[in-house]
Amino acid sequence: SCILHEPFFGVLDYGGLHMPGPVIFSSWTSVDTDFLCDEDPALFSKHRSQTPPKTWARSGTASEFQSIDFDLHENAQFLEHRVVGGVAHLKKVMKWACVIQVGIVTALLGFGIDTVLEVFFDLQRMMRDSLITHDWQVGAQLAVHVAVCVVFASVAGFFVCFVEPLAAGSGIPEIKCALNGVEIPRIWRMRTLISKAVGVLFSVAAGLPCGKEGPMIHSGAVIGALVARNRYAPQFLDLTGTCDVSDFVISGASAGVAATFGAPVGGVLFAMEEGSAFWNPRIMLLTFVCAATSASFTNLFQTGEDMVHWGLMGGLQSHSFGHFDMHVYRCWEISIFIVVGACGGLGGAAFNAANRKLSLWRVRLGSRGFKRFCEVVVVAAIIATINFMLPVLLEGESAIQEDMARHARLFRTSGSTSTRDLFHCEEDFDSVGLLVFAVIYCVLACWTYGLGVPSGLFIPSLLTGAAFGRLLGQGLQAWSLDTLPAGVYAMIGAAAALAGMARITLSLAVILAEGSSSMSLGIPLFVTVIVARAVGNFFNRGIYDIHIGLKRLPLLEHFAESKMKRFCARDVMTKEVVALDPLIVISHLMGILSGCNHHGFPVVGLKTGRFGGMIRRSVLLRVLLCAKEYPLLLSADASFRDVTVVPYHRMKPDGRCPTLEMVRASLRPDDFDKVLDIRPYILEGGSSVTDHTSLTRVYTLFRTLGLRHLPVVNAGRVVGIITRKDLLFV
Amino acid sequence: SCILHEPFFGVLDYGGLHMPGPVIFSSWTSVDTDFLCDEDPALFSKHRSQTPPKTWARSGTASEFQSIDFDLHENAQFLEHRVVGGVAHLKKVMKWACVIQVGIVTALLGFGIDTVLEVFFDLQRMMRDSLITHDWQVGAQLAVHVAVCVVFASVAGFFVCFVEPLAAGSGIPEIKCALNGVEIPRIWRMRTLISKAVGVLFSVAAGLPCGKEGPMIHSGAVIGALVARNRYAPQFLDLTGTCDVSDFVISGASAGVAATFGAPVGGVLFAMEEGSAFWNPRIMLLTFVCAATSASFTNLFQTGEDMVHWGLMGGLQSHSFGHFDMHVYRCWEISIFIVVGACGGLGGAAFNAANRKLSLWRVRLGSRGFKRFCEVVVVAAIIATINFMLPVLLEGESAIQEDMARHARLFRTSGSTSTRDLFHCEEDFDSVGLLVFAVIYCVLACWTYGLGVPSGLFIPSLLTGAAFGRLLGQGLQAWSLDTLPAGVYAMIGAAAALAGMARITLSLAVILAEGSSSMSLGIPLFVTVIVARAVGNFFNRGIYDIHIGLKRLPLLEHFAESKMKRFCARDVMTKEVVALDPLIVISHLMGILSGCNHHGFPVVGLKTGRFGGMIRRSVLLRVLLCAKEYPLLLSADASFRDVTVVPYHRMKPDGRCPTLEMVRASLRPDDFDKVLDIRPYILEGGSSVTDHTSLTRVYTLFRTLGLRHLPVVNAGRVVGIITRKDLLFV
Repeated sequence: SCILHEPFFGVLDYGGLHMPGPVIFSSWTSVDTDFLCDEDPALFSKHRSQTPPKTWARSGTASEFQSIDFDLHENAQFLEHRVVGGVAHLKKVMKWACVIQVGIVTALLGFGIDTVLEVFFDLQRMMRDSLITHDWQVGAQLAVHVAVCVVFASVAGFFVCFVEPLAAGSGIPEIKCALNGVEIPRIWRMRTLISKAVGVLFSVAAGLPCGKEGPMIHSGAVIGALVARNRYAPQFLDLTGTCDVSDFVISGASAGVAATFGAPVGGVLFAMEEGSAFWNPRIMLLTFVCAATSASFTNLFQTGEDMVHWGLMGGLQSHSFGHFDMHVYRCWEISIFIVVGACGGLGGAAFNAANRKLSLWRVRLGSRGFKRFCEVVVVAAIIATINFMLPVLLEGESAIQEDMARHARLFRTSGSTSTRDLFHCEEDFDSVGLLVFAVIYCVLACWTYGLGVPSGLFIPSLLTGAAFGRLLGQGLQAWSLDTLPAGVYAMIGAAAALAGMARITLSLAVILAEGSSSMSLGIPLFVTVIVARAVGNFFNRGIYDIHIGLKRLPLLEHFAESKMKRFCARDVMTKEVVALDPLIVISHLMGILSGCNHHGFPVVGLKTGRFGGMIRRSVLLRVLLCAKEYPLLLSADASFRDVTVVPYHRMKPDGRCPTLEMVRASLRPDDFDKVLDIRPYILEGGSSVTDHTSLTRVYTLFRTLGLRHLPVVNAGRVVGIITRKDLLFV
Repeated sequence: SCILHEPFFGVLDYGGLHMPGPVIFSSWTSVDTDFLCDEDPALFSKHRSQTPPKTWARSGTASEFQSIDFDLHENAQFLEHRVVGGVAHLKKVMKWACVIQVGIVTALLGFGIDTVLEVFFDLQRMMRDSLITHDWQVGAQLAVHVAVCVVFASVAGFFVCFVEPLAAGSGIPEIKCALNGVEIPRIWRMRTLISKAVGVLFSVAAGLPCGKEGPMIHSGAVIGALVARNRYAPQFLDLTGTCDVSDFVISGASAGVAATFGAPVGGVLFAMEEGSAFWNPRIMLLTFVCAATSASFTNLFQTGEDMVHWGLMGGLQSHSFGHFDMHVYRCWEISIFIVVGACGGLGGAAFNAANRKLSLWRVRLGSRGFKRFCEVVVVAAIIATINFMLPVLLEGESAIQEDMARHARLFRTSGSTSTRDLFHCEEDFDSVGLLVFAVIYCVLACWTYGLGVPSGLFIPSLLTGAAFGRLLGQGLQAWSLDTLPAGVYAMIGAAAALAGMARITLSLAVILAEGSSSMSLGIPLFVTVIVARAVGNFFNRGIYDIHIGLKRLPLLEHFAESKMKRFCARDVMTKEVVALDPLIVISHLMGILSGCNHHGFPVVGLKTGRFGGMIRRSVLLRVLLCAKEYPLLLSADASFRDVTVVPYHRMKPDGRCPTLEMVRASLRPDDFDKVLDIRPYILEGGSSVTDHTSLTRVYTLFRTLGLRHLPVVNAGRVVGIITRKDLLFV
């Protein structure tokens, strides 16, 4: 091990090879970059050579996260494999089969969650009703109700605070980042899936104002990743397999939408609008097949238990928001939709701002542990008390669930049932009661999102919006205006509220339209969501983006920020580049690998000093692990004419990358003096830029090609390297 | 002018500058590329250095088409402008306003076409009926009918054969290519729009089996381009404006779908599935707003003429395929949908193969002129005869339209009316009559597509499929199976037929579901279209792709073909590169510009011989045109320290690129000896590859970044250049 601690940048001399000295290029200025500037190099770079921005993110939590490289590592070994290997057709068939499997499993999970939730709610209702019929005191009833809710919430909180913190919240920010190229540790584990799926059962059953929708989308995505890694891999994945896995993740997410809302088209559009970093017709078809499978099976599972109804698909049960008949409206009503949309945008912006403040405070509690768990218990107790007491205050104490007034019942039933009631109930709700419910529910929803439980935001914001929309609709009807029914206004309001918070447009409108089979209400929905988004965006960002920011996840938006226009590659690149030699001594290589945590290294030619390509840490580790099996390690004076190349398929026995420890354990002490030829494993044709390249162009390259590292090369010499973190503005 | 004809690659010597001799690099091998190969350069390139493929397209019609460069030409001048210029906010507002305008104009056009078509059909029907009531002989009736149809068809044919050949067909292949980056001359002209829109009126009114849908989509796209160029440009477009214009084109196309089918979501999905080369949430939102606007206004226009109905939106009239109630079906029926889908795929493949043979024969007629016109007249006469005589043979001669049996009436009414009948008619059609109609109509539709008239394929294939589907549905009902109504089967059949021909999946299903307000039938539609596409793709390509191939349009598919795996950049690049010097003598530059038709030139440093960046022909021409106004042209012995740079906004007074003739006219004779400094106009940071880069990677770069030229640079030296045509496999 002493070999490892020797300074690894010294000049070693062995055999005919000369190991060049410093592999850290510390300044780009030493390189002759001004190819054109026979006259004066400063002439045309006057507007660029500003002082390098000090506002760039180089620190903080963002650096915890690694990036994903969507770019193929097309080295000689891989190219050889690709030409020879003939599994393309089988791979295609396997892919489709796996996607269909993802759809079916997601549908099963969704159906399971629904069924269990129904049982939970039935039990709670029965318990409450039996307490009333047995003439218990209100205080005792309250105590029992709160106790039950707190127990449920604790179970949900336990999964988040002590098992897997990633199960908290809706999971949509995490999915969005993962698809964008941020490697979030532990997100694709079975443990996360179980925590999320079981946790959300209990958080919804605890009567917290949250929905199962976001967590279902997250669960679908995890199912996609798990199927991709375990069934589909390792034979069919490329070396890192990131592209394939991300296709499955996005398909799984859309299957989640399809399973919860019965909205396959909405699922595809949601995946496109929120999730996707890369999009093309092939991914669209994959996503669509997965979502359609999931929706079909969900519909099939929901058809009923008895033999008469079983298998009777396409009926009312397939519409999560109930069925709307065809409605007509006067064209002037569109102005009302615009107003509703604007209100939704304003309300959503206020909600987001409030939730942001709360979440900033919440960061102190940490992402796991007892403090966070206590908050869950306290909040659950308070919400349970409110949910129990308000109907009592409004209605008197002795009403059992079925006798309760419609507006009072809203506090006690699940969010999705309440939403359906608001959409479809023919008779009017009590206006004051509805207003009280809407305001209180909205505040509670804001308080809950970000709590240490799995909690979706769809249902709470839809329900809040539906309550306000219903109020408006009833008001319009009361003024005997010939408008759409109050239930339709409830849907418009719901769309406005969710679009105002999450800034989703088309996919939300389609989810609502599909979920209520009301394509004739498309135009009102479209107008509302577009206005809500525009108004909301005027004030702040969407709730998911806010949470991405709070978690300091290094998401790259689709377009560069306008501030980037002022800078070029030189201003953001890391100038200290750790480069490798094509023929490298193992002790030297192991030193570099253990001495830094870079994931990609430029390889620089021995004699010429020229940039030859990039090599990934994972590739190096895999090659080193194979070094014993193949005669890869040669003594320094050997001939490097006919170097053995590890066959590609040997490089990924189980799709996982070996650790440095595993590699070190596999090497004998005398191996450390030997030389490894890494030339066949170098990505020679990868992207690179010059230090003149504008930063917006660098950003576009990163964004459209899904890069992780971008070497900055001037006239064949590496002068710097740019990674995702260098591109993040704080 | 004698200056222009002097050999422009000679060594000129003036002042302190040395003009290097040959600017054509004819071989890459002379350049030192083997940076790594201290041992043996052939070692790691053994699987690559195959003989360059001889099958690459370098010739033929494809070279008629220029490519579009979606990449920004970020030269020093532009970067300066971008940092200083502050029109971003206004630009945004303008863009939204223009997109809404595109939606409204498209809706107006669609409504206009519908209205005029209705008048034409009413007149024809009245004429036929009055002939019958006046007891004309069948022969005389036939003669009048055929004469009217031939006159209508001639008008349509006139527009295509003598005015604008691009107005032929559906226009979807052309739109697809234009968005992909192929510059199709004349496609965005007002003349094309008028030819298409007016022409399709007459071709549909002539009773040809074609629809107005494809042409409407094309018209929408042209409207988008026209608005972008005339309203939005020139203040807000970037130098070439291709990105902005293509956003408008795609929005316009989706508005076209929204206007014809009343399906805004379908429009967005269609644009994504068929049209888009680049896709991101921003384009999606733009497209969505445009489609929603178009659908809203179409709905508003269609609400009726009287005061009672005017403005009553959301009703039946907004559904182009009529309204389906909610239907339930047993899960085993899905197997029938699969069979229908498979049949659709088979039928579609047969249709495509037949149409391909026919179109290959048709190429001989030329794209315009008398021969093609004659074909239109002959085909129209035959089809009119069939359409007239078959009802007479089936029904007897004296039936006026309203008395005719339902199946006989199919021959006489417009395609969209017939489709609605097949979808919604409660009573059964006569099976034999329906079968006769389906077979004959299918053959005629195949014959018509590709004829010299504007003709969409949507309605013909939907109608054929609907007829077969209805037959199946009636058969199932007759066996007293408890299946979905025959009308629903007609819709399933329609979806199968169109998906089998055009291989559209999600967008087609959504268009049908939106157009008939039947989201509950989503799953049957999804299953059908997915199966139809899969089966069809087994045999041949979609009809649009076949026509793109026949027209030899250089479309780049989303993914590289697997054959490309074997090659690298070196194998396809053009080795004869015409390079420019940063300080260039005008006579030399004008000689190069007139001596070749390249649209991009690498600039190579004077002393160093290094690659400095690319410059576009259009930029050079604009700069030369400004040369008089700004003191750009200096004598060869001048100092090039402080060169005047043309302000960016002066470069695009009307968005058009000046011709070489205009430039030549603007120069005085003594200007030809002067020197122009082109350094500020060079794109320095553009993409480049090495000659080792794998061809699939080159393809991906072209495809994802929308490139037009890709220089191949080894260690700072240009060794070749790759253009779109080099990437096309024959």
